[in-house]
Amino acid sequence: MSGCQMDANTVRPIRFFNGTCQMLDQRLLPAEVVWHNYKDYQAVAEAIRNMVVRGAPAIGVAAAIGAWLGARDIETESSEEFFAEFTRICDLLVATRPTAVNLSWALERMKRFAHANLDRTVLELKIGLEFEALAIAQEDEQRNKKMGRHGEGLIPDGARILTHCNAGALATAGYGTALGVIRTAVAAGKKVSVIVDETRPFLQGARLTTWELQKDKIPVTLICDNAAGYLMSQGEIDCVIVGADRISANGDVANKIGTYTVAVLAKEHNIPFYVAAPISTIDLSLSDGSQIPIEERDAREITHFKDVQLAPEEIAVRNPAFDVTPNRLVTAIITEHGVAQGSYRKNLAEFVSKG
Amino acid sequence: MSGCQMDANTVRPIRFFNGTCQMLDQRLLPAEVVWHNYKDYQAVAEAIRNMVVRGAPAIGVAAAIGAWLGARDIETESSEEFFAEFTRICDLLVATRPTAVNLSWALERMKRFAHANLDRTVLELKIGLEFEALAIAQEDEQRNKKMGRHGEGLIPDGARILTHCNAGALATAGYGTALGVIRTAVAAGKKVSVIVDETRPFLQGARLTTWELQKDKIPVTLICDNAAGYLMSQGEIDCVIVGADRISANGDVANKIGTYTVAVLAKEHNIPFYVAAPISTIDLSLSDGSQIPIEERDAREITHFKDVQLAPEEIAVRNPAFDVTPNRLVTAIITEHGVAQGSYRKNLAEFVSKG
Repeated sequence: MSGCQMDANTVRPIRFFNGTCQMLDQRLLPAEVVWHNYKDYQAVAEAIRNMVVRGAPAIGVAAAIGAWLGARDIETESSEEFFAEFTRICDLLVATRPTAVNLSWALERMKRFAHANLDRTVLELKIGLEFEALAIAQEDEQRNKKMGRHGEGLIPDGARILTHCNAGALATAGYGTALGVIRTAVAAGKKVSVIVDETRPFLQGARLTTWELQKDKIPVTLICDNAAGYLMSQGEIDCVIVGADRISANGDVANKIGTYTVAVLAKEHNIPFYVAAPISTIDLSLSDGSQIPIEERDAREITHFKDVQLAPEEIAVRNPAFDVTPNRLVTAIITEHGVAQGSYRKNLAEFVSKG
Repeated sequence: MSGCQMDANTVRPIRFFNGTCQMLDQRLLPAEVVWHNYKDYQAVAEAIRNMVVRGAPAIGVAAAIGAWLGARDIETESSEEFFAEFTRICDLLVATRPTAVNLSWALERMKRFAHANLDRTVLELKIGLEFEALAIAQEDEQRNKKMGRHGEGLIPDGARILTHCNAGALATAGYGTALGVIRTAVAAGKKVSVIVDETRPFLQGARLTTWELQKDKIPVTLICDNAAGYLMSQGEIDCVIVGADRISANGDVANKIGTYTVAVLAKEHNIPFYVAAPISTIDLSLSDGSQIPIEERDAREITHFKDVQLAPEEIAVRNPAFDVTPNRLVTAIITEHGVAQGSYRKNLAEFVSKG
């Protein structure tokens, strides 16, 4: 990944070189910019679970690097023993978060690489897995740029674009999915502005999306999630673009909690609702979105802000971290292989077959 | 108001006796229960502006008491001079917050009382205005109980009820509007549970609605505003009930920001959406909701939590404090004079004519 860091201003949440993984602590942004070092797979698993790193493509990349750190430390000369232990490590990493499918996609790719090379020595396997993890990261950023080129035609000049959560550079290896499309539109000379939902409870919009758009000097306005409907009713939103954590074969989209609400509002106001996500987010094994597992996170994310109590003691809480937007509310799905519209089942299957 | 404090457990946010006004600081709940003393109208105006007291009926009551504190301190023997000064004080109080019409309703009533009694001495006017302010407070609680009796028939046994913001005892002189209807349903023996939107940015749901329902042992579950759509899509919400800050002649409802979003979601899921509000919230002078002024509050409510920075420095923010739900999304409006359904313009005008 160090190989593609040409632009010093470009945000990339994961660094990987000289056998060390560094991750930007996304819980502390924007007030503090803190990088942590990760030297073993257990620490990477914990960072994914605790949301030091978040965003479907980014946790895929982090998991691949975590898997390599695990692989590096396996002490055996037997490729078979190595593979058994490597599989155990991947199983542990995939269990860190249930909704985003990119996590299992990246780990499956790592396992497939190892399995296809079981005739090699353990040393060769370890070196090969390092290159594979690097490739996953580099390809992710390249995919986002392709996605941007496919999607930017959907963004009109002058558009006031609503986005929810963070589907930006911070949610990927770099450049971003939804924000990548916006970046490409800006690079094409379009004057756009972005309205950002703060995205409770983790505030990815308020803390992360604003931060990276501000760095890129793209005009940005922060609102409460509650204000999106009001702004639409006032004619102040021209389109919506979000990322995704998992897309079922029929084009139903799991994404950050609140996305479904935005989609319903967009339909009510006849505003196009776009999803930008790489092929690795598409899960053809699930026929529709009702089969996507929805993570429920800790009540404390809602009842407290840092150590400040927001709600009474012992209050019951529901904290689903994602919701599912049915395909009928999705105007188009933007991928690195093109834009799917209308017949999602056919289009998405074709895109996935291109690999 | 002390006269109707029979139940020690009953929440009432404003106390008024012996010429002193006390208000519960709603910014500090639920972590701290702090009462402040208010000895002049300027301090009451500041408390309304800063949201020590909030909720359309409650700020009407607070303003009436503030007006009396102002009246008490006017130094003149001339009733005409007294009335001119009293009008100036009321004008200052009415300007504290623009959206809730109950504020001007209460102050108009105080002015009307003074104007109708200009033949009295200034001392008599002052005493009369104190009784008038007390009556406004006491009648508010009585109205809420009537509203509860009219509305509770709409709540099925076993209902899982979503509410947004706080339309409870804390938003009124006592008992609450939307929560008053729920309290009446519970008193009628119905087993209901309440799902509470946290209601960013001020967190009235997380901090206040949970607190007062927990005190009443009514089952309550807190969610992020973002999760309301998800729970509806999962069939976990049976009806919605909210309060109102101003209702135009055609039944369009201004209420806390995010209410419109909940109403759109309710329509999408065929869930009834009820509004509970006293006649004092209805503004027949406005033909429809587009004429209701929407307060925009300080960016800091969104960019900071207490002193903790949530968003980057110098970020642009939109912070509308209210939105307008069009009448077509409102299943019924519950008032102290009955339930309006269908032809709001006719029904609401009839209710208002009953006074």
